[in-house]
Amino acid sequence: MNSRTIKQRIKTIRRQLNKKNINCLIVTKPANITYITGFSGSDSWAVITPKNVYLLTDSRYIEQAQNQCPHCRIIQSGGPIIEATARLFKKLKSVQAAAVEDSVSVAAFKTLKKNLGGRLKTAANIIESVRRTKNDDEIAAIEAAVRIAAQALKQTLRSIKPGLTENELAGILDFQIRKLGAVNSFETIAAFGSNASRPHHQPGGRKLKKNDTILIDFGVRYKNYCCDLTRCFTVGRTPGFYKKVYGAVQKAQAAALKIVKAGVELRQVDSAARKIIAESDLPVYGHGTGHGLGLEVHEAPSLSGRNKGKLETGMVITIEPAVYLPGKLGVRLEDNILVTPNGYKILTRNCPHNHLLPV
Amino acid sequence: MNSRTIKQRIKTIRRQLNKKNINCLIVTKPANITYITGFSGSDSWAVITPKNVYLLTDSRYIEQAQNQCPHCRIIQSGGPIIEATARLFKKLKSVQAAAVEDSVSVAAFKTLKKNLGGRLKTAANIIESVRRTKNDDEIAAIEAAVRIAAQALKQTLRSIKPGLTENELAGILDFQIRKLGAVNSFETIAAFGSNASRPHHQPGGRKLKKNDTILIDFGVRYKNYCCDLTRCFTVGRTPGFYKKVYGAVQKAQAAALKIVKAGVELRQVDSAARKIIAESDLPVYGHGTGHGLGLEVHEAPSLSGRNKGKLETGMVITIEPAVYLPGKLGVRLEDNILVTPNGYKILTRNCPHNHLLPV
Repeated sequence: MNSRTIKQRIKTIRRQLNKKNINCLIVTKPANITYITGFSGSDSWAVITPKNVYLLTDSRYIEQAQNQCPHCRIIQSGGPIIEATARLFKKLKSVQAAAVEDSVSVAAFKTLKKNLGGRLKTAANIIESVRRTKNDDEIAAIEAAVRIAAQALKQTLRSIKPGLTENELAGILDFQIRKLGAVNSFETIAAFGSNASRPHHQPGGRKLKKNDTILIDFGVRYKNYCCDLTRCFTVGRTPGFYKKVYGAVQKAQAAALKIVKAGVELRQVDSAARKIIAESDLPVYGHGTGHGLGLEVHEAPSLSGRNKGKLETGMVITIEPAVYLPGKLGVRLEDNILVTPNGYKILTRNCPHNHLLPV
Repeated sequence: MNSRTIKQRIKTIRRQLNKKNINCLIVTKPANITYITGFSGSDSWAVITPKNVYLLTDSRYIEQAQNQCPHCRIIQSGGPIIEATARLFKKLKSVQAAAVEDSVSVAAFKTLKKNLGGRLKTAANIIESVRRTKNDDEIAAIEAAVRIAAQALKQTLRSIKPGLTENELAGILDFQIRKLGAVNSFETIAAFGSNASRPHHQPGGRKLKKNDTILIDFGVRYKNYCCDLTRCFTVGRTPGFYKKVYGAVQKAQAAALKIVKAGVELRQVDSAARKIIAESDLPVYGHGTGHGLGLEVHEAPSLSGRNKGKLETGMVITIEPAVYLPGKLGVRLEDNILVTPNGYKILTRNCPHNHLLPV
């Protein structure tokens, strides 16, 4: 992210902190640290005060932090990060109380509390709530990840032939992503035939048959931003029932998309997709219809029947209805969508879709 | 893991719980859940009572849980896992109080507390302390991961030639791992030349030169167990100074190994390695000299100057001294070691080592 974006984020977050009477926030969640500093390493914490943003890291990351975080004061922890944070806190004369993100572990909170005493409280979802909508730079970053995903998948489809294992397919796809200068945003799922009925199937030695079905769920992380998509393919003859299921899932996705625009309730989008699956006399999937993505591959908002929140302009979400029939098949279609004031833009439109692969 | 091993673990953990007057433990850390149930998915919790082990998971993982956890009572959460856990707790008439692992987030703890009231406390390192030493099954699992790592690295070294990028090298290695039916235990580090001075360098587009140096830090996860090793190679002419540094790191590793056996203080092993680097007039690395590995690629014990604990028979640890000279070079050698009553066994002995690669 460019420095203008980072400065803007800090400004917005400081406004949120002021509203909540927090003048010092200890940031412990990796994606939140990346959001406010640009730092992409791990095992580090950040501290936002009214005047500065501090990045506390260890010797392994000092060189990287100096390159990535020109706007931060970088502190080498030289031991446990909690102790380094407590030492910093004691030096900040103008700061009387601090809040730490409530995603921190109870163990870390207790140790921090021992060091800071009564001047420590917790804060929930401050940075997450800002991260929920994306600016143009972030949308461009996700689009770049999607371009790599599309290209990697296109290359991979050329290698698909009977005899290939799920493991090999996942490996080829991951290699294409690496060749394009990116990494997986999560462990690639490649499931053949009935293995696809397990939504988070771990690829194994199952070989592709002459007539078979393939589900691939994968994502790319590029310059810290993620995409996440699922595609289904068939090789050889496509059974009529599979076509029917695929059609129902397509229809469910279209029904959800149809109502997507800023202001619509998340649970309405969720139920629009479910309704079609139920009406098709197919079992309704147990997971949500989608989730936000950005620095994390799963982030707010979640599109579930329980979420009373609303779509907002600038949210980037997945829409991923599915049908799972254990022992038989699994079909899921997952696209990445930008929410706009009057509708949406499908970011993953150019990723290969609904192929009958030549064998 | 076979069912005998799982049962033995539960027995040992229940003994620990009895000592601490805990009759119900809510297990939230993924590796701990795998340890007591065999389950390898995510987003799930487990509950140990005097009579049963429950696995709470969502619809995505039900089929997998049924296959992997024959000894557990499997509960489909059908909503937030905290609520499902609270419902289970209320049904367990014989259980008056529960402890949750203190690695849980403050946010989750608060919600759980709201549901269970004063009957909830936290527990630290119960399962981790049992996991610290490995039984024969676990050692065999780590050895299997090491064999895959060695074979994947051997295959990869054949593809190394000037012009290859760090990204491509990492991609080739990852692909070989996948082909052998395993996955990375963490994101592969491939660093050429001076990039290796950043211990956690993220591979990029830097191309291998005719005369160059390579650092590869990678690991394999196979049947849930991890290995983690680092090797350095040179192509073309090896500068005399690089040879000197490499020799010092080798000597440091040998010095640490020399004193490894059950009963020795962890910090002694750490300082044995550091001493050699300092005596060689080279900068002493900022990270620890090693860490435990098993279900997690980093787990207890850490080999640092602060750790007053001792080596125990059955611990599997890394020994990884290094020299980092920003702008110049980085050399790290990392092997995986089993601690025995009278010494150690190097599990990674057959992984390619100290190659001068033909170009």
